[in-house]
Amino acid sequence: MKSYKGYIFDMDGVIYRGDEIIYEAVEAINTLVKNGHKVMFVTNNSGKLAVEYAKVVKNMGIIGIGENDILTSGNVASIYLKKQLAQNPDRKNILCVCGNAVKTLMKEIGMNIIDPKDYKNAHYVIVGITTDFNWELGDHAANAIAVYGAEFIGTNPDVAKPAENGEIFAGTGSIIAFIETASQTKATIMGKPYPEIYKSALERMKLDIKETLMVGDLLNTDIKGANELGMDSAFVLTGLHKKDDIQRFDIHPTYVIENLLDLLK
Amino acid sequence: MKSYKGYIFDMDGVIYRGDEIIYEAVEAINTLVKNGHKVMFVTNNSGKLAVEYAKVVKNMGIIGIGENDILTSGNVASIYLKKQLAQNPDRKNILCVCGNAVKTLMKEIGMNIIDPKDYKNAHYVIVGITTDFNWELGDHAANAIAVYGAEFIGTNPDVAKPAENGEIFAGTGSIIAFIETASQTKATIMGKPYPEIYKSALERMKLDIKETLMVGDLLNTDIKGANELGMDSAFVLTGLHKKDDIQRFDIHPTYVIENLLDLLK
Repeated sequence: MKSYKGYIFDMDGVIYRGDEIIYEAVEAINTLVKNGHKVMFVTNNSGKLAVEYAKVVKNMGIIGIGENDILTSGNVASIYLKKQLAQNPDRKNILCVCGNAVKTLMKEIGMNIIDPKDYKNAHYVIVGITTDFNWELGDHAANAIAVYGAEFIGTNPDVAKPAENGEIFAGTGSIIAFIETASQTKATIMGKPYPEIYKSALERMKLDIKETLMVGDLLNTDIKGANELGMDSAFVLTGLHKKDDIQRFDIHPTYVIENLLDLLK
Repeated sequence: MKSYKGYIFDMDGVIYRGDEIIYEAVEAINTLVKNGHKVMFVTNNSGKLAVEYAKVVKNMGIIGIGENDILTSGNVASIYLKKQLAQNPDRKNILCVCGNAVKTLMKEIGMNIIDPKDYKNAHYVIVGITTDFNWELGDHAANAIAVYGAEFIGTNPDVAKPAENGEIFAGTGSIIAFIETASQTKATIMGKPYPEIYKSALERMKLDIKETLMVGDLLNTDIKGANELGMDSAFVLTGLHKKDDIQRFDIHPTYVIENLLDLLK
């Protein structure tokens, strides 16, 4: 396989599966880092902070990875909104339909988190994963957007993720769908397969698209987004999607690999 | 205008606007009833019972209209589910994501309303308007449908309705969108523009499509549904949609009328 200056790795299904570490991934990534390649981790999950993911990665035995080498969809939203805030410093009222991790990021960049009942004064509505979502919060958000002109940001489009016993955990995409339907307005989405998260990762690595490989286990997020940007992609079979899914989704990666050690071959 | 044996009237925007009675509608409907035409009222709103709407209609001065001449989308769901129950009497566990009116209808037909935490045992999930909707209830419903095979029924697709001060009230369609997204399963919808409510009205009147006129103020629900069934339709300009909306929606009624007195001309 071609050698790239930079590698962007999805996390769940690529370096771990739930609580289980994928040891080939640890070995492969450590080799890439030792050989001077740039490495970043990206995740659509907005429920944790990068600093928490950095600990997870370190505890797995992956070397040389800090908070700045990890981008959650919440980070990408905060990078996007920081730029918006620089242009319009007065527009800083944000209605948060999200958990504490994203709220922390919003405070860090100087956003003013408003009480949801004060929705008339929102300049932005941000939606991330939160099990505290309810009709009233969704209605406030829809009014902020459709009636009072707030900009609508979604961290990620994931409809659901696997939970225990084969059950599903309703995702950010479901909350976004409620508010998009009520407001009849589409959210701007930060996470994969949308371009912001890939662009933010390239900016952090100071590399361009042709120098970088996206590595992920999900065809309709990781690989689809890379394809749409013209970035090479490696579909790894350690996660949720199987080889047959390539035809089913009609999404075609540059490489199909069994595990991350194949990146070194 | 051609005379029909039966007339189906939408309510909000046709016979009243909020608290305001449309007097031409009262006069026109009373004349139709006196002249021996059959009349029914249909509404996508599942938040009230037919008996409550019958009182509203009576208090407006419309004569000869009882509970059985009114169909809410909740009634249509109960007619549909009563037939299902007759075929499969053991499948009677229903997870209710809806208000008390629909719950009452479900009890009346012999459904067993389960605790949402008992979602694994649901045979049906029904969604109507409820401001008690929250993430946990949506997640339970999505698991009932996607993992445990419950049939997914939605009373109506309305995304939002007008509220005070130009604001919007997030509708049943928004709740359905959350659960459809999380479960990746489409609901079977009872209300306009879907066929069940028109068919139920015809069944009640013992008339067929060609003998009946649908009268409504909303092109994308009232008129669209009638068109799709091949039923004649009258678009009345006393409600939310204006004449220009015909081109915008590209939905073309049989007649455009200023108010219901035009039905008598």
